[in-house]
Amino acid sequence: MNGIRILGLDPSLVACGWGMVEMEGTKLRHIAHGVIRPNPKAELHSRLRELFEAITQIIDIHDPNEASVEEAFMKNNAASALKLGQARAICLLAASLPGLAVGEYSAKSVKKSVVGTGSADKIQVAHMMNVLMPGCGVKAGDAADALAIAICHGHRVSAAGQGYRISA
Amino acid sequence: MNGIRILGLDPSLVACGWGMVEMEGTKLRHIAHGVIRPNPKAELHSRLRELFEAITQIIDIHDPNEASVEEAFMKNNAASALKLGQARAICLLAASLPGLAVGEYSAKSVKKSVVGTGSADKIQVAHMMNVLMPGCGVKAGDAADALAIAICHGHRVSAAGQGYRISA
Repeated sequence: MNGIRILGLDPSLVACGWGMVEMEGTKLRHIAHGVIRPNPKAELHSRLRELFEAITQIIDIHDPNEASVEEAFMKNNAASALKLGQARAICLLAASLPGLAVGEYSAKSVKKSVVGTGSADKIQVAHMMNVLMPGCGVKAGDAADALAIAICHGHRVSAAGQGYRISA
Repeated sequence: MNGIRILGLDPSLVACGWGMVEMEGTKLRHIAHGVIRPNPKAELHSRLRELFEAITQIIDIHDPNEASVEEAFMKNNAASALKLGQARAICLLAASLPGLAVGEYSAKSVKKSVVGTGSADKIQVAHMMNVLMPGCGVKAGDAADALAIAICHGHRVSAAGQGYRISA
C-alpha cells in the first residue's frame, strides 16, 4: 500500500492516545496504536520531555507523512485548559519538528467523520475503528480516539482533492 | 567568573522574554537578553516550533547551567490559560531536553526576590535590573522580567545552600 500514512494524537499529559493508519483512496489500513503515560510523579518539565520523546520515537519508527491533532476543547476551567494547552503544544511540536504537515480537528468533527454524528461516545468511536479496520483490536479510550483523529485527517485531505500529499 | 549561568524565560507565544545571567556568591553578571516573537501569521504548530528553535539556539550559544521559567498565572479565562500553557510547555521542554535543571517561580516570588515586594510593576523590575547589572540597558517588559526570573532562581539555589550546582 503506497498511500498516506497518518499519525493521530489525542493530547493529554496523563494518557496521550496515538494511532497510526495508512489510507489510499477508500482503502484503510491499521498500522499501530497506543497510549503514552508520562510518569505522574515526575516534575512537569520531565513529563513534557517524556511525552515529546515518546512521540518522536513513534514518528521515527513508523515514519508517517502527516499528523493530525485534536483541537483543544475550551473548558471553562482555566487550570484544565492550561494543562491541555501544555500537552497539545508538545504534540504539535513533536509532529512539526520533523516536517510533518499537521492538521487540527475538533472532537466533534472527528466523531462526525468516523461515526456520522458529532455526539458519538467513546464506545461508538472504538466500535467504528474495529469495523473500519477489522482485527485492529483497539478498545474504547484514548488510542481509539487517536485512530479516529488520524482517519478524520485522511478524509479531509482526500475530500480537499489534495490527493496524497507527501510532506517534506 | 566561574559561577552558575542561568537562563530565565517568561513564556508567551507572542513575545517570550529571555535573559541570561551569571551568579557567583553575591556577584551578578548580565550576559544577554532578548524577546522571541514567533510569526503571528503562521500556523500554531509553526509558531511553537519557532519558539522552541529560538530557545534551543540561545541555549546552544550561551550554554547555561540551569533554567528558570515563570509559573503560569491561573487566569480565569480558559482560552488565555490554554495559550499560556502552550508557550510554557515549549519553554520547559526546550530547557529540559539538553538536561538543564529547571526551576519554576510565580510572578509574585520573582518580583519579591528582585524588588522586595510581590506587587512591583514592570517598570520597577526593569529599574532593579539596571541597578543590579549596570549597563545591561534592559527596558521594562518581557526581557527585564526574564532576567528577574533568572536572578530569582539564583537566589533560591544560593539560599537553599546548594551552592552552584552544575547540572548534567
